[in-house]
Amino acid sequence: MSKKLTKRSEDYSKWYNELVVKADLAENSAVRGCMVIKPYGFAIWEKMQAELDRMFKETGHQNAYFPLFVPKSLFEAEEKNAEGFAKECAVVTHYRLQNDPDNEGKLRVDPEAKLEEELVVRPTSEAIIWNTYKGWIQSYRDLPLLINQWANVVRWEMRTRLFLRTAEFLWQEGHTAHATKTEAIAEAKQMQEVYAEFAENFMAMPVVKGVKSDSERFAGAEDTYTIEALMQDGKALQAGTSHFLGQNFAEAFDVKFTNKEGKQDYVWATSWGVSTRLIGGLIMTHSDDNGLVLPPKLAPIQVVIVPIYKGQDQLDAISEKAKSIQSDLRRKGISVKFDDRDTFRPGAKFAEYELKGVPVRIAIGNRDLENGTLEIARRDTFEKQIVNQDDSVNFIENLLEEIQVNLFQKAIDFRKQNTSIVDDFKEFKKAIKKGGFVSAHWDGTEETEDRIKEYTKATIRCIPNDAKEESGVCVLTGKPSNKRVLFAKAY
Amino acid sequence: MSKKLTKRSEDYSKWYNELVVKADLAENSAVRGCMVIKPYGFAIWEKMQAELDRMFKETGHQNAYFPLFVPKSLFEAEEKNAEGFAKECAVVTHYRLQNDPDNEGKLRVDPEAKLEEELVVRPTSEAIIWNTYKGWIQSYRDLPLLINQWANVVRWEMRTRLFLRTAEFLWQEGHTAHATKTEAIAEAKQMQEVYAEFAENFMAMPVVKGVKSDSERFAGAEDTYTIEALMQDGKALQAGTSHFLGQNFAEAFDVKFTNKEGKQDYVWATSWGVSTRLIGGLIMTHSDDNGLVLPPKLAPIQVVIVPIYKGQDQLDAISEKAKSIQSDLRRKGISVKFDDRDTFRPGAKFAEYELKGVPVRIAIGNRDLENGTLEIARRDTFEKQIVNQDDSVNFIENLLEEIQVNLFQKAIDFRKQNTSIVDDFKEFKKAIKKGGFVSAHWDGTEETEDRIKEYTKATIRCIPNDAKEESGVCVLTGKPSNKRVLFAKAY
Repeated sequence: MSKKLTKRSEDYSKWYNELVVKADLAENSAVRGCMVIKPYGFAIWEKMQAELDRMFKETGHQNAYFPLFVPKSLFEAEEKNAEGFAKECAVVTHYRLQNDPDNEGKLRVDPEAKLEEELVVRPTSEAIIWNTYKGWIQSYRDLPLLINQWANVVRWEMRTRLFLRTAEFLWQEGHTAHATKTEAIAEAKQMQEVYAEFAENFMAMPVVKGVKSDSERFAGAEDTYTIEALMQDGKALQAGTSHFLGQNFAEAFDVKFTNKEGKQDYVWATSWGVSTRLIGGLIMTHSDDNGLVLPPKLAPIQVVIVPIYKGQDQLDAISEKAKSIQSDLRRKGISVKFDDRDTFRPGAKFAEYELKGVPVRIAIGNRDLENGTLEIARRDTFEKQIVNQDDSVNFIENLLEEIQVNLFQKAIDFRKQNTSIVDDFKEFKKAIKKGGFVSAHWDGTEETEDRIKEYTKATIRCIPNDAKEESGVCVLTGKPSNKRVLFAKAY
Repeated sequence: MSKKLTKRSEDYSKWYNELVVKADLAENSAVRGCMVIKPYGFAIWEKMQAELDRMFKETGHQNAYFPLFVPKSLFEAEEKNAEGFAKECAVVTHYRLQNDPDNEGKLRVDPEAKLEEELVVRPTSEAIIWNTYKGWIQSYRDLPLLINQWANVVRWEMRTRLFLRTAEFLWQEGHTAHATKTEAIAEAKQMQEVYAEFAENFMAMPVVKGVKSDSERFAGAEDTYTIEALMQDGKALQAGTSHFLGQNFAEAFDVKFTNKEGKQDYVWATSWGVSTRLIGGLIMTHSDDNGLVLPPKLAPIQVVIVPIYKGQDQLDAISEKAKSIQSDLRRKGISVKFDDRDTFRPGAKFAEYELKGVPVRIAIGNRDLENGTLEIARRDTFEKQIVNQDDSVNFIENLLEEIQVNLFQKAIDFRKQNTSIVDDFKEFKKAIKKGGFVSAHWDGTEETEDRIKEYTKATIRCIPNDAKEESGVCVLTGKPSNKRVLFAKAY
């Protein structure tokens, strides 16, 4: 095994980068800012996808697929959206390469194969999708239209980090169309709830649900509903957003419908997305100096069985027992790996599965065979227990649930300890410097928001859905405010 | 409902295009050659993906994800592969748009945001993947490396058709690395078998397994194993290919490993893929003048229940029974839609599900309630039967299996009737003109193959795996040959 991870307390960012690579989740590629998602990292994404996809379908959505490319004229149709993404989009200008006569054996773009209209590689798909919806929606009978797409998108970011911010990333984007404003807002809020449920119940990552301030809103949206999580280093992570788009895209793409009264009206829209960024959030919520810690519900391998043996005879006897436990667990829907490789010693295997965050490790040796026992170790607390083989299936089923609950509780506790309520700017700066969420009054202006950002690097993460009416004064300007908002430095 | 489909006998190609759109499978988009896959079409793709993904995992493969873009220098590293795809690739040259000072309010590419190195949108991922594998493979212990990717790819085709040939399409691409030539060839052949099994057992589409001639081989491969299906219009469809790549990519990207004897050697490679093109094959294997015919194993809706009623009371009573049948069937894992929309009459619903190829339709009216019966109609033969409600679950389970078998058998019979064995060029031309597979002797030269293509538009689809040793003479040149090969005009 490669040498130890940097400690989180030494350099959190370095710890993160090392962990992503050493745990075989992802690595940088030859393409600037684009990552390779390795099989182990992709297996986590597949688990996330499966749960989210189920939740989307249960709420009435269907999947579809729209083109990767957006012709420039469509891209620029909704002005705010275009303005928001124009500075970071990859543009296809040619459709052929040819041999370069000045550089033998090399290729260059064929100047005669220049596209009449440039194609933007989708940074998000509102434009291409609303241009399509125009043909699909005539009457209220065609509404609501509830569609989701799993896709890759490209945003030419200058500073990238594996999972958290990459030039290409994988995501899902929901795009829905509704007959009324009320219904569209309800949809956008529903998807915020779905995301929050997924984050908390599957990722064991507590989130604050709220709405974005004007300046943090999605380009082209009327309102952006967000879920915000707190990472171990005290920085916030925007983990998912759901947008109420009003009639902006319907107007830009002329999507009208005949309502029940026979009148024409523009359609109301939402869009919502989460991405492979969630994997970054998962890592920075639970993992420790020994490596990944994965919540059982998203762990590609939930249980690993490591045999402790001397010689082939012992291994054979242990294997028989291990395989029987493996199939018992599998019958319960638990994913189990039996690692009988003879090229690694048990200690090396223990370290590997610790690094990879496998929630439960079973060790089984010769004495266990004699005694009818197993040694069961949990990754989150490092506790070990000797358990009777006969009780092991129930024990492990319960243990996996317990680990899931424990990780969530630990993260909740961490957030509680790292949320400050402050009422003046000196305290505010101190709290932001310390890290964590800071709950404070704000006068509601973009100007104040900008100045706070300038002084402290903190941004308004959201106006929490559950923020109480409470009269107070803005921490910066002293102007009146009736609600606290949540500030933090953020990824 | 919109007016009737063009008949297949009138214009097969028009029938196909109309059917794809009318059955809500896909449509053309605003981007030249790129399609929108609509929810119903995408649901078929999801079913295909689920089965294939399971089969890949059962044969030891893992999923991963590699970048969309291939830097030009990597793209051109394997010369034959680059040559094969250079003429049809989309190229990203800029990473930013800006306001066009000469055209107010419009965007243009920012000339200052020109990439130092152009990025090719992947037409296939050997280059970017083998460049990555270089870092993953050092020793024989790292082999075999068995990876698959589900992705979108872009090939700038000039003539496109929905599903069959589109500029962007969805596919999976397996990329494996092996220590020995024997093992790599076995892998490539194994995946040909997996594809054939999927085509026959799930799509009910019979295929001929064979190997491509030199000129039809994948650019950069040593051997291409293919599965070839015969469409209703007598044209062949290449439905999936698996390539033995030799050491070409390992050499181009310098991927060496230390073998068990401690010596350095280049790694052996395969790649293999199937795409959304399969949906085109599915349509052209089974569908008829009334619309889609879907094999039950891939039908998004396997059974539809249509109530026949007058007034709300009757509907209520029928709904209760229908929902109980629906849940009985669902418990058996059968997907059932109960269509109680009151905005369409039963006749319109029947036509809609016929068009959409739902394998089994249940009609239930007031008399059925009284008699404890159902009317069950199958889409493939239009046969109707009155069945006791108590027997209906078993009946339908069996019927779905029977339909699956029947579709396959019909397709097998069609292929048998449309395969000619010919021994001279006059007959050959006649047979090709008539359509179907033509089994004939060929002298093994590319020149003859080219001339036959020029004269008849037919190509060698494959040299079948099960071709018998048989001495004969080439249909064109009269030169000796020891095996028949399969010719056809192809999509």
